[in-house]
Amino acid sequence: MRPNRSTEGQTVSDLRFDDLQNGYRVWQDPSMFCFGIDAVLLAHYPVMRDGDEIMDLGTGFAPIPLIMHAAARDAGIRVHITGIEIQERAAQLADRSVRDNGLAEDITIIHGDLKEAVPLCGAASFSLVVSNPPYIRAGSGLVGADEAKAAARTELKCTFDDVASRGAGLLRTGGRFAMVHRPQRLPELLETLKRHHLEPKRMRLVYPFRDAGASMVLVEAVKGGRPELLVEPPLIIYHHDRTYTEEVLDIYGRDPVSGRDTDRKS
Amino acid sequence: MRPNRSTEGQTVSDLRFDDLQNGYRVWQDPSMFCFGIDAVLLAHYPVMRDGDEIMDLGTGFAPIPLIMHAAARDAGIRVHITGIEIQERAAQLADRSVRDNGLAEDITIIHGDLKEAVPLCGAASFSLVVSNPPYIRAGSGLVGADEAKAAARTELKCTFDDVASRGAGLLRTGGRFAMVHRPQRLPELLETLKRHHLEPKRMRLVYPFRDAGASMVLVEAVKGGRPELLVEPPLIIYHHDRTYTEEVLDIYGRDPVSGRDTDRKS
Repeated sequence: MRPNRSTEGQTVSDLRFDDLQNGYRVWQDPSMFCFGIDAVLLAHYPVMRDGDEIMDLGTGFAPIPLIMHAAARDAGIRVHITGIEIQERAAQLADRSVRDNGLAEDITIIHGDLKEAVPLCGAASFSLVVSNPPYIRAGSGLVGADEAKAAARTELKCTFDDVASRGAGLLRTGGRFAMVHRPQRLPELLETLKRHHLEPKRMRLVYPFRDAGASMVLVEAVKGGRPELLVEPPLIIYHHDRTYTEEVLDIYGRDPVSGRDTDRKS
Repeated sequence: MRPNRSTEGQTVSDLRFDDLQNGYRVWQDPSMFCFGIDAVLLAHYPVMRDGDEIMDLGTGFAPIPLIMHAAARDAGIRVHITGIEIQERAAQLADRSVRDNGLAEDITIIHGDLKEAVPLCGAASFSLVVSNPPYIRAGSGLVGADEAKAAARTELKCTFDDVASRGAGLLRTGGRFAMVHRPQRLPELLETLKRHHLEPKRMRLVYPFRDAGASMVLVEAVKGGRPELLVEPPLIIYHHDRTYTEEVLDIYGRDPVSGRDTDRKS
C-alpha cells in the first residue's frame, strides 16, 4: 500500500463521467481544472514498451494514465502507471475512475506532493515519466480567483524545475521524460531539462492552424542521453474551417468528445 | 578604410555570376561553398528598420548582404551592411560582387576572423547581427576533403559560442541577433544565446515537407530582452511533388534560380 493513497467517499453532485472513447471513462468535477487536448496529445507522445513503469507527475483526474493504459492494452503490452496529485479532491476522483474502469492493478493514484515523489516512490524506479505541468509562472498576475483551477494552471505548488528534477530522480539512466508545455518558455524548459541530465531527444511543435504560431510543445528527453534533437513534423490541430486535421482525428479515435478541448490550459 | 578590406585581382576561370532575381548578381566559385536556401531564408527573416547597422558574421560570397540590401531598397529604407569573412578568396569575390552591383557605399566586406570582429568594428556599434554559421561540430568526423568547403560547414575556425559571443559584443542593448542553424543542436543553441544575454524572442522551424522533420531553424534573439519566445508558423519548403510552396516562391520572387538550393549545408 502506497502512502497517502487517496480514498473515495465524498458524494457531490455536478460530476461528469466522460467517455474517453477508448473503453474507459473519467470522472471530472467541472468546478476544477478539466483536462484538455494537451493531455491527450501528451498521452500519445511517448512510445511505450512492454513492462514500462510509468509515472505521471501532477495527474489531476488521471486522464493521461487512462489514455496511456488504453493505448498499451490496444498494443498488447503491459505497463504500470502511477499518478501523483496534490489536490485531494482530484486524487479522489482519479482513484475512483481507476477502480470504476477495473484498473486498480495497473494504475496507482497517490495523493501527495510531486516534490516528494522520489522518497514516496523510490529513486530510479521508473522507465518513463510524463507530465502536463502548470504552464504559467507564479507572480505573472494571471492567477484566477478559483484556487483549484489556479494550481493546475499556475506554478503555485511546483515549478518546472521541481517537475524536471523529480522526473530525473525517479528515472533510471536511459529512461524517458515526456512533457507538454508552452513554447513561449522553450529556452528555459530545454535548459532546465539539460541541467537535470534530461537530454531533449524529440520535440514536436503543435500549431492550432497551419499558418498560426505554436500553442504547445511536446518534448521527450532521455536521462543521460547524448545531445541530438529530432524536431518532428509539425502537428496541426485544425483545418481553417475548424474541423480537426486527420492526425488529430486519428489520435481522438475519429470521434472526439465534444468540448474535450474547450478547457485548455491557457 | 577598414583593416583587411579584401582586394580583387586574382583571375580565375569557372566563376559563376548568379542572378539573385532582385536586381543584383553574386560572384561564386563553385569549387568553394556556394550559398543555399538557408542563407536566403535567413536574409528574409529579420525585420529591418531604417538606419540599421547590420553585421553578417561569416558572410562567404555575401549573398545575405546582397539579398538584405535589395529588400531594404524595395522597402524604401536605408541600411548599412558589413560582412566579415575569414577565407580570403571568398572575401575577394564578395567585395567584387558589392562593387559590380554598385553597392560599395552601403555594403562593406572585411577579410578577417569573425572572432576579431569586436576590436575590428567596435563594440555595441550594430543594431542587427545575422549569421549562417558552420553547422557541424568539429571532431564529428564529417569534415570533407575540401578545406574551403569544410570551413563553411564545420566549426573548424569558429564555434557557435564564438559567433554568439561576438554577436553580443557587436550589438547595442536591444539589438537583434538573427541566425539559421540545425534543429538537432537547438537546446545548445538556445542555451548559448541566453548565456550571452541574447534572449530568443522569435523562432521558426523549417520543414522540407509538411510531414517531415525540421531541417533548419531560424531564431531571432534580442540583446537584454525579456524571456518570452514566439514560435512562428511552420515554414514548409516543398509540396509533395517537390514544387516550392507559395511562401518559398514569394521569398524567391516567384522565379527561384534553378539549383540555388542544391548546395545546402548538410
